Amino acid sequence: MRINLERMKHKFEEMSAVGATQDGGVTRLALSSSDKEARDLLKEWLSEAGLSVRVDDLGNVYGRQEGTDSTAKPIVIGSHLDSVINSGKFDGTIGLIGALEVIETLREHSIETKRSIEIVNITNEEGFRFAPMKGGSGVLSGDYSIEAVHAAQDENGKTFREELEKIGYLGEKKNRLVDAEAFIELHIEQGPILEQENLPLAVVEKIVGIERFEVTITGEENNAGSTPMSKRKDALSTAARMIVEVEQAAKAIGKNGITTVGDVNVEPGIVNMIPGKVTFLIDARDENLDRAKLEDQLFKGLYEIAKVDGVQMEVKELLSIKPTTFSPKLSEDIVQTADSLGYPIKRMIGGLGHVAMYMNNLCPAAMIFVPSIDGKSHVPDEETNWDDIEKGADVLLNLVHKLAEEEALSLLQEK
Amino acid sequence: MRINLERMKHKFEEMSAVGATQDGGVTRLALSSSDKEARDLLKEWLSEAGLSVRVDDLGNVYGRQEGTDSTAKPIVIGSHLDSVINSGKFDGTIGLIGALEVIETLREHSIETKRSIEIVNITNEEGFRFAPMKGGSGVLSGDYSIEAVHAAQDENGKTFREELEKIGYLGEKKNRLVDAEAFIELHIEQGPILEQENLPLAVVEKIVGIERFEVTITGEENNAGSTPMSKRKDALSTAARMIVEVEQAAKAIGKNGITTVGDVNVEPGIVNMIPGKVTFLIDARDENLDRAKLEDQLFKGLYEIAKVDGVQMEVKELLSIKPTTFSPKLSEDIVQTADSLGYPIKRMIGGLGHVAMYMNNLCPAAMIFVPSIDGKSHVPDEETNWDDIEKGADVLLNLVHKLAEEEALSLLQEK
Repeated sequence: MRINLERMKHKFEEMSAVGATQDGGVTRLALSSSDKEARDLLKEWLSEAGLSVRVDDLGNVYGRQEGTDSTAKPIVIGSHLDSVINSGKFDGTIGLIGALEVIETLREHSIETKRSIEIVNITNEEGFRFAPMKGGSGVLSGDYSIEAVHAAQDENGKTFREELEKIGYLGEKKNRLVDAEAFIELHIEQGPILEQENLPLAVVEKIVGIERFEVTITGEENNAGSTPMSKRKDALSTAARMIVEVEQAAKAIGKNGITTVGDVNVEPGIVNMIPGKVTFLIDARDENLDRAKLEDQLFKGLYEIAKVDGVQMEVKELLSIKPTTFSPKLSEDIVQTADSLGYPIKRMIGGLGHVAMYMNNLCPAAMIFVPSIDGKSHVPDEETNWDDIEKGADVLLNLVHKLAEEEALSLLQEK
Repeated sequence: MRINLERMKHKFEEMSAVGATQDGGVTRLALSSSDKEARDLLKEWLSEAGLSVRVDDLGNVYGRQEGTDSTAKPIVIGSHLDSVINSGKFDGTIGLIGALEVIETLREHSIETKRSIEIVNITNEEGFRFAPMKGGSGVLSGDYSIEAVHAAQDENGKTFREELEKIGYLGEKKNRLVDAEAFIELHIEQGPILEQENLPLAVVEKIVGIERFEVTITGEENNAGSTPMSKRKDALSTAARMIVEVEQAAKAIGKNGITTVGDVNVEPGIVNMIPGKVTFLIDARDENLDRAKLEDQLFKGLYEIAKVDGVQMEVKELLSIKPTTFSPKLSEDIVQTADSLGYPIKRMIGGLGHVAMYMNNLCPAAMIFVPSIDGKSHVPDEETNWDDIEKGADVLLNLVHKLAEEEALSLLQEK
């Protein structure tokens, strides 16, 4: 069974017009008017596809195709329609367009499944406008409280809840997804690996853990012209040595460990003043990331530098996400499905957070990646070849069909 | 002959109230309403002291006490009343209060001098609101054109000329100082050296040259989570290595060479994005600074780092001030005057720009420094002990008295 690429592309183009930017990208900040417009379009499509639509108290939008066995847990597929500013058209969107294509193709083949199939658009995946990111999935999984997510404020002090209500997407708690047999997300890789290896597909077996910190170095602000080199406590010189050290530390964190300093802020930041205070942000990732071990792997070296330079160093934790291991059974199912269709597939580790990450705490979850041209993402020229998207959607289709007929995983495992 | 410290302190307190900040400092941005207020107060004092007041087309305010020989060039003393934001009360101001005290003390002693004595308040010494800094002296010395200084805009697009006119201090070109026998500036050190050596005075024999640059590093912006360490061109990692190198390069520039990176700007500056572009500012100073030699002493190492990291590097020159050597004759006069009063005095090299720096291109110039407590300057708690200010003003007084009776330097040298 294969999806209809033309139909999928048509929907993609329609969705790409929502929040379109001059540069050819999209801006659909969570709970903005363009996010509302995207949701309205999705609801229209869900209804047209004959699904029953509901919205929960997080604004997550569901479309459900009833299965023949009303007691069986559903198979859930989906992703997100929100974006960062002037972002790409593919991120998130292809997971939903692909999910709709699965339903349409099954219907074309007059296939009724045992299990219900649900499509879901998760609210605020990006976390760009409201923290925490992926709140729409994190509450379903029990990782966040609804109160915390509802109370989150954007930079203008508007709350998640009031903005949700304003765009008409504050639904009922009873509409939440509470259990599922599986959650499968089709997504772009947002990195260069599949393209470099010339492969159309990957199964994401794990997602790295992420730890983020803000480091503050306090030295002594002084006039650059009248303070000899030997009398300085230059917070920026120290921070520069630390930034070099953070990069070096990636190897210590893990074989695939990555460390990034994404921003630096210098005070007073004047050409002729020795910086008295510098803050910088660290992002550390690895599939075996361990918060406790980071003290040794990362911070020991930084504290040593601060000590030698005679400056003060403070560390504030900004984010801590444990590594994710997706359902091995579902990951195998993805590989077998791709094999059966004759599509090469790579087993890989994801480097970014995704909706499936939290869903994995609610039910067995898995992810399919398609390549990103030049590894670009969150930019207007984010792109994926349609040949690859077609293969990804074909795998999603055949996998969902198989899973929707299958016995419960618990029963399968007993055999 | 000694000055009257109480009279001097009284004027200082009055001037400190102009543009006073909550933190105990002053904000008197050039050509602002508080700068106008400071000028008005100065003019009042100049008139009270019996000086004839004039203003030139740069807004420089002069007060002239006529000498007995109308053909002799004047002795000029002064500094500046403008400040940066929330700055100290002593910077610039004590040069003018000290100059007024010289006139008052000479009058008390009924001393009429051969040469005229002029007091001058130079416009926009700080260069904080309008570039170039010290434009008020740089035009007198021929370093800048009046057109360039008048056309300079502040960050709101207001020009120097229109703001000068607005506060009523656009005077006439014919009022400019065109020649002088000597210019002497009494100023705070703004550094820690005199305090550390427990000395009340210094003669500034030289001022370092200053070269400023903006360096831009262009790497590749990418998502931090999906770009392995080996695939990165992280502009910030490169910049960090360069900042360390800039600090190391101070030794190569000169025995007293200093190098400072005062600010860094990271793009996009997001925690989970590899920085694609980083700009940072370099300030290099030394008494023998040579722009051409900096290529070898400073930039060679940076270009090497850029090459190894495979990133692009661009350098833009922001400022180039050649080293200043003040009049050796006047510097010796300062030392002898201090000696005759029994005040210990250090010979030193100034690390910052001063009014006297440009005046030195107009006429023989020299500077007297008094210590800064904790080396602090341009901050509200900038401070100098009054004992030291008294000694500095005493030296200024006796030096001016001597110079105002002396033959012209050209004649002295012939002897």
